[in-house]
Amino acid sequence: MMRVTRCYHFPANHRLHTPLLSDAENAELFGKCNYPFGHGHNYTVEIAVEGPVRAETGQVVDPGALDRLVQSDVVAPMAHANLNCKIPEFGDLVATTENLAVVIEQRLRARWDEVFPEGPALCRIGIRETLNNYISKAVAR
Amino acid sequence: MMRVTRCYHFPANHRLHTPLLSDAENAELFGKCNYPFGHGHNYTVEIAVEGPVRAETGQVVDPGALDRLVQSDVVAPMAHANLNCKIPEFGDLVATTENLAVVIEQRLRARWDEVFPEGPALCRIGIRETLNNYISKAVAR
Amino acid sequence: MMRVTRCYHFPANHRLHTPLLSDAENAELFGKCNYPFGHGHNYTVEIAVEGPVRAETGQVVDPGALDRLVQSDVVAPMAHANLNCKIPEFGDLVATTENLAVVIEQRLRARWDEVFPEGPALCRIGIRETLNNYISKAVAR
Amino acid sequence: MMRVTRCYHFPANHRLHTPLLSDAENAELFGKCNYPFGHGHNYTVEIAVEGPVRAETGQVVDPGALDRLVQSDVVAPMAHANLNCKIPEFGDLVATTENLAVVIEQRLRARWDEVFPEGPALCRIGIRETLNNYISKAVAR
Amino acid sequence: MMRVTRCYHFPANHRLHTPLLSDAENAELFGKCNYPFGHGHNYTVEIAVEGPVRAETGQVVDPGALDRLVQSDVVAPMAHANLNCKIPEFGDLVATTENLAVVIEQRLRARWDEVFPEGPALCRIGIRETLNNYISKAVAR
Amino acid sequence: MMRVTRCYHFPANHRLHTPLLSDAENAELFGKCNYPFGHGHNYTVEIAVEGPVRAETGQVVDPGALDRLVQSDVVAPMAHANLNCKIPEFGDLVATTENLAVVIEQRLRARWDEVFPEGPALCRIGIRETLNNYISKAVAR
Repeated sequence: MMRVTRCYHFPANHRLHTPLLSDAENAELFGKCNYPFGHGHNYTVEIAVEGPVRAETGQVVDPGALDRLVQSDVVAPMAHANLNCKIPEFGDLVATTENLAVVIEQRLRARWDEVFPEGPALCRIGIRETLNNYISKAVAR
Repeated sequence: MMRVTRCYHFPANHRLHTPLLSDAENAELFGKCNYPFGHGHNYTVEIAVEGPVRAETGQVVDPGALDRLVQSDVVAPMAHANLNCKIPEFGDLVATTENLAVVIEQRLRARWDEVFPEGPALCRIGIRETLNNYISKAVAR
Repeated sequence: MMRVTRCYHFPANHRLHTPLLSDAENAELFGKCNYPFGHGHNYTVEIAVEGPVRAETGQVVDPGALDRLVQSDVVAPMAHANLNCKIPEFGDLVATTENLAVVIEQRLRARWDEVFPEGPALCRIGIRETLNNYISKAVAR
Repeated sequence: MMRVTRCYHFPANHRLHTPLLSDAENAELFGKCNYPFGHGHNYTVEIAVEGPVRAETGQVVDPGALDRLVQSDVVAPMAHANLNCKIPEFGDLVATTENLAVVIEQRLRARWDEVFPEGPALCRIGIRETLNNYISKAVAR
Repeated sequence: MMRVTRCYHFPANHRLHTPLLSDAENAELFGKCNYPFGHGHNYTVEIAVEGPVRAETGQVVDPGALDRLVQSDVVAPMAHANLNCKIPEFGDLVATTENLAVVIEQRLRARWDEVFPEGPALCRIGIRETLNNYISKAVAR
Repeated sequence: MMRVTRCYHFPANHRLHTPLLSDAENAELFGKCNYPFGHGHNYTVEIAVEGPVRAETGQVVDPGALDRLVQSDVVAPMAHANLNCKIPEFGDLVATTENLAVVIEQRLRARWDEVFPEGPALCRIGIRETLNNYISKAVAR
């Protein structure tokens, strides 16, 4: 078994705000990250897959197929977007990087078996939000 | 003469849009960067100063004094901000990284002689917007 | 369950020397790292925590609370220090990066339940000593 | 238990091609990576070992001993080489980065117990092929 | 006047060999870099342009136009290629990174005025060959 | 004319202290950097040379000759050293990174013409002290 991790980069904008709290509580909780117009990051998203090395290709995954899936379902809709406004899943969720990992996992899992019926398995989502803040999530199987 | 460059990091949000053009022309010119709600970056701002090494300190600049100036006049107002809305200079200017360099230079020059009456000289502003896009500007003296 | 890793940077000084061995054996074992006056590194310390994403915050951990704890108990006492002289735990321990991870883990565990009574769990300490040497330690629970 | 990861850098050349397929199928499968004269990368190889911290050294592994082993059995034969031509194991294997991890693991395991009879255990091989493509493999024990 | 530097990444293969010397002299001069099958690198090419910030765009250069030129004339022909075999200019030149900078400059200058008739000026080519080796060349005007 | 920059890495220890001032003034001026036992950094030293590309080698400088000079006169004496104690030039100079650049320049110029009688010229010394502090010095000719 081997793991392949591919990285994707895009800038986006988010605002931390939850309808579960009042405006004052949001401001208290999230501080500057609650500013109405949001702020942004250069996100680096890491997608890790795991499986055996196939004899004829010497590869765990067809990198082109993975790139096309991530490009169409994650990077294209999110790059240069305001995550709160453009990504429907953030209607219910605070647009933190933790929840961005949840949303990316949901999007990839929704089409994974169709695109990779013979594997490999999607195994981990990582997001570098800044030089000093990194989120990662094992994908349950 | 020696040059010291110090780096400062902050996330912010910007939208590329100019009142000199129509909405359709803005959309055509700036593409995704013209989305109304903006997008963001982790900006790394480099401030370079130049001067002689002082015998008693072995330094070109008091790093604490430089950090305090950049923090108060650049990082504090811009970090987590929407540059278009929060930074008055962008009322007249498209909020590109080029113009961000212009604005940062103006802000630092406005107080430079007061903070550093005996030098060193402010000599260069650099901004890394993404891994692959970098802006720099020599400061005229 | 999700993992959040935050990074902290500080320069410090250490000397590799153990009272369990003679001076000659120390010199033989540690080579240049046994020089009496020590040498230093820019350490990058990674603190990883693990827990569920809380619905109201969209976060695994309050980043400000984590930063304050690491700042007060790790970065403030260690930054710009000679680890052998300033950090009492290194009276008994060789000041290697491995043992620095042990010391940082002990310090954080000592106050963890008080600062984070409802979680998340401290799960991993990583230290980058140089570009090419990295230490990591899973935290037993 | 603690993990130490050391990094080694070398440039090499590889061509993706398998005798299990026809030339046309190879060209279709590997695209530009199938060009007859190959292309190259600056590989960064990470070798992770795991074991207890020894009381007298404060270390998990003698870094000099590990460096000598990796240098003689991995870096010296592979640096500046065409992997397909110079590394005999690639007679049977497509010279992908996945298989490079397999070959490096085999070479290190072949001599591990002789060089490190008292441990630590070899636990993981990682290879960064490009900024955006990373391979890793846990070592079975 | 402001400078914008954009970075492009591609892997390629080269062999250092000159017809001006005998095979033995080539082997002596270039060492491992003279191996017949070559070796490779992940090259990062930096293209810097200089000009005024245009009022209506807030930009020095249309980044899309620059990207298209560099992609068609530099990255597409060179990525995954053996520079000695695929790039005609290296018939006469040793395929060092210094000469790669010369070739890239020639290719960009050949079409610069056609693509950017109103500026900006091409001002500098930089190539990072490895973490520790960097080549740069000012473009004469 | 072309510029080649090569990078060298070493850890060292320094203490900022000047005999021109009293102990109290030193403590006031340098703060934590005045601690008696010093602190350290992973220094990255960049040595830039400038000259024409030689036709037979395709190179500006013999990289092996440059590496040997920097290794013997800079890296070997400074790596893992306490700069204040081991490097005689710091008897008269505060051991700042600015002065480290001065000392490295002096050492390289002292032997430059002997090692490189036909060029290239030594043109610039750069030192990265931390992620956010960088010193550079043009070499007068």
